[in-house]
Amino acid sequence: MREVAILGVGQTPVREHWDISLRALAVEAGRAALADAGVERVDALYVSNMNSDRLVGQRHLGPLVADYLGQRGIEAVKLEAACGSAGSAMRQGMLAVASGEMERVLIIGAEKLTEKPGRETTAALATAADADYEVEHGITFVGLNALIMRRYMHQYGYDHRDFAPFALTAHANAAANPNALYRYAIDQREYDRGRDVADPITLYDASPIGDGAAALLLVAAERAPGAVRVIGSASATDTVAVHDREDILWLRAAELSAGRAYAQAGLGPEDIDLFELHDAFSIMAALSLEACGFAGRGGGVRLGLDGDIARGGRIPISTMGGLKARGHPVGATGLYQLVEATLQLRGQAGALQVDGARVAMTQNIGGSGATIVTHILKN
Amino acid sequence: MREVAILGVGQTPVREHWDISLRALAVEAGRAALADAGVERVDALYVSNMNSDRLVGQRHLGPLVADYLGQRGIEAVKLEAACGSAGSAMRQGMLAVASGEMERVLIIGAEKLTEKPGRETTAALATAADADYEVEHGITFVGLNALIMRRYMHQYGYDHRDFAPFALTAHANAAANPNALYRYAIDQREYDRGRDVADPITLYDASPIGDGAAALLLVAAERAPGAVRVIGSASATDTVAVHDREDILWLRAAELSAGRAYAQAGLGPEDIDLFELHDAFSIMAALSLEACGFAGRGGGVRLGLDGDIARGGRIPISTMGGLKARGHPVGATGLYQLVEATLQLRGQAGALQVDGARVAMTQNIGGSGATIVTHILKN
Repeated sequence: MREVAILGVGQTPVREHWDISLRALAVEAGRAALADAGVERVDALYVSNMNSDRLVGQRHLGPLVADYLGQRGIEAVKLEAACGSAGSAMRQGMLAVASGEMERVLIIGAEKLTEKPGRETTAALATAADADYEVEHGITFVGLNALIMRRYMHQYGYDHRDFAPFALTAHANAAANPNALYRYAIDQREYDRGRDVADPITLYDASPIGDGAAALLLVAAERAPGAVRVIGSASATDTVAVHDREDILWLRAAELSAGRAYAQAGLGPEDIDLFELHDAFSIMAALSLEACGFAGRGGGVRLGLDGDIARGGRIPISTMGGLKARGHPVGATGLYQLVEATLQLRGQAGALQVDGARVAMTQNIGGSGATIVTHILKN
Repeated sequence: MREVAILGVGQTPVREHWDISLRALAVEAGRAALADAGVERVDALYVSNMNSDRLVGQRHLGPLVADYLGQRGIEAVKLEAACGSAGSAMRQGMLAVASGEMERVLIIGAEKLTEKPGRETTAALATAADADYEVEHGITFVGLNALIMRRYMHQYGYDHRDFAPFALTAHANAAANPNALYRYAIDQREYDRGRDVADPITLYDASPIGDGAAALLLVAAERAPGAVRVIGSASATDTVAVHDREDILWLRAAELSAGRAYAQAGLGPEDIDLFELHDAFSIMAALSLEACGFAGRGGGVRLGLDGDIARGGRIPISTMGGLKARGHPVGATGLYQLVEATLQLRGQAGALQVDGARVAMTQNIGGSGATIVTHILKN
C-alpha cells in the first residue's frame, strides 16, 4: 500500500443551521476542501452521516451529495458507525487511495441534528446503543455515559469538580475558533454550577449537538510533497452494550486501534504533539487518554488537573474546542477532528496553534466505545 | 492491487421472519459463510443495511454484528446506499483485501422490513429518493418506477403484457430455490390479472419486501486456488432525483459501472454466462439489460419476449428467482445476488444450474438508478 496525504480540508461553522439544508452543508464543506486542494474532479466520494434518515428524511447521501457537488457519475457511498461514522469514512477513503484504485478521494461528514424536536433527536442518537438490551429499558445515551462516569469516580476516588479541566480547556480553545458552536470561555465556578443532565453528568460534561459538515481531500503522498501525511490508521470495535464489557472503565477498542496506529507510525504516545480526542462526555476524554497510553488507569482526570492537556502542556487536547465546545454534529465530528489536526500540522491554527506541532492523533468514537477509529497525521 | 476470491457464501431464506431479530439473521448468514470457507476469525466486517434505524430502532450494526458473531474487537462498519447497500459493501470489502491491508474480510447484508406496518416501511424506503424534490411531493418509490415504465412503453411501443417474461422467468426459477420468498411459478394469465400497484406497475412488476441476510467471505485469490474470483468491480452514480436526468430511460450509472467492470475483466456482454440483475421492478430489469450492452435501446423487453433471459437462453437472468420472486430484503439483496452467482459458478445451483457457467455478472441498484454497483465473477 502507498502512503496517503491530505491535500485539502474544508469545514462549515458548527451552528443551528435552520436555514441551510443537509445537502447544502455537505456541499459547502466539500467545495472548500476541493478549493483548498486545487482539485476539481475526484474519483470517489465517501459520505459519513448518522441520522439523516430519521431527522431529515433523506438517505442515499452518496449520489445526492456527489451530484450537488458537481461530481455526477463518480463512485459514492455513505458510511455509518454512530458517532464514529466520520472516522470510519476517512478509514475507507484512505484504503481506496492506498490501494492504488483511486487517485483523488473526497470525504465529507455532514449532520443536521436541530431539524426536529429534542426528544426525536435524543431517540435517534440512542440507536447507537443496543436497542434490545439497553434502549428498550429506557436508558438514553447520556445515561449510559453517566453510569460509566459514576463508576469511574467511585473506583478512582475523584469528585465531580475534578473533571472541570476538560470543559475549561475545550471552551478556552473554542473561544478563538470561529467555526466553534460555543465561542466563550468558562471558569471553575461556571462548571460547578452546571445543571444536571444525567447525574453525575452536568451541562459542562456533555457535548452539544449541532449542525455542520467537514471534508478532506486525499491523494497519494507521492503526488503531494509537503502535504500532511496519514502515517497511522486503524479501527476496532467492542460490544455495543456497555454491560457486556469485562471492564466498563477500559476502552478496549481505543487500546486496539491506537496500538495498531502507533505500530504503523513507528511512534508511541510520547511522540504525539496534540490529540483530538472524542470528548462527547468528559468521562470519554479521560478513558481515551488512558487507553491510548497517555496516562495509567484512573490517571486521565489527573492529566487535566496537572495542566497537561492545555496548549503548551504535555498532551494538548481539544485544541480547537473539541466536541465539548466546537460542537458535536455526530456524523461529521470525526472529520472536524481531522481537519483541525491538519490545520495544526500546517501551522494554520492561528491563535490556537500548538507550537512546533509535527505529529497529531485523532480518535473518533461511536457509541460508548463500540467503534473507535484512530488516525495519526504527520507533517 | 491483488486479485480477490470468494471463499465462502451464506444466506438465510427470505421470509417474513417475525420470530428472528435482525442481528440473529445477520449472524446466521455470517456463520454460514465462515463455515463454508472453513475460516474462524476475520480481520474486518462490512455490514450493509438500509432501514434498521427506522424499522428496528438499531443503528451501529458493524460492532453489534461483529460481537454477536464471536468476532469482538475486529474492525467493522456499516455501508448504506439505499437498495444498493450490499453491492457497495462488497465493493469496499473487496478493496480492503485487494489493497493488502486485510487477509480475511466478511461482508454481511441484512434487512428486516416486515417489523413495522406497511405504511412505515413504504415511508422508510422512500428515503432512497430525493426527500426535497420527489418525496416531499408525495411520490413513492414504486410511483417513480411507474413513471419510468409508462414513458418506456410510450417511447418504444410496448404493451404492459410484454413485460411478463421478467416475472415469469423469476417465478419459474424461484420455485426451485428453497431460500426464495415466492416458491411458485406463474403464467401469462396470472401476470395479466395482477392488480394495480401504481399504474402501469402491477403486482407482478414489483418485487416484494422481505427479511433476510446473505454473506460472503473474501480472501486474496492467491490464497484460494480454485475459488470463484472477482475479476470486475465498479460503482457509479447518477442523480437521485429522476427528473434531473438527461434521459430517464437510460441508466447512466449502469453503463459506467458495467463498462468499467468489463474493462477490468477484459470481457464484454457476450462473455457473460448469467446476469443477476436488479429486477426490483420489471422496468429496471429492461433498463439494466440495455445499459449493460445486452440489448439496444428499447430492446430489453424484447430479450424477454424472445426467450433470451431464461436458463438456456442467451443471457439468463434472475436464475434463482431474482428480486421479483426470491424477494428483496433491500440492504441484503446485492449479497444474495453475489451468493447466487457464486453458487452458479461453483456448479452448486442444483435444479437451477446454468450449464457451463464460467462468468457471472451481478448488478445492484440503489434508488431508481442513482447508485449502481457491478461485479463480474469467474470460476
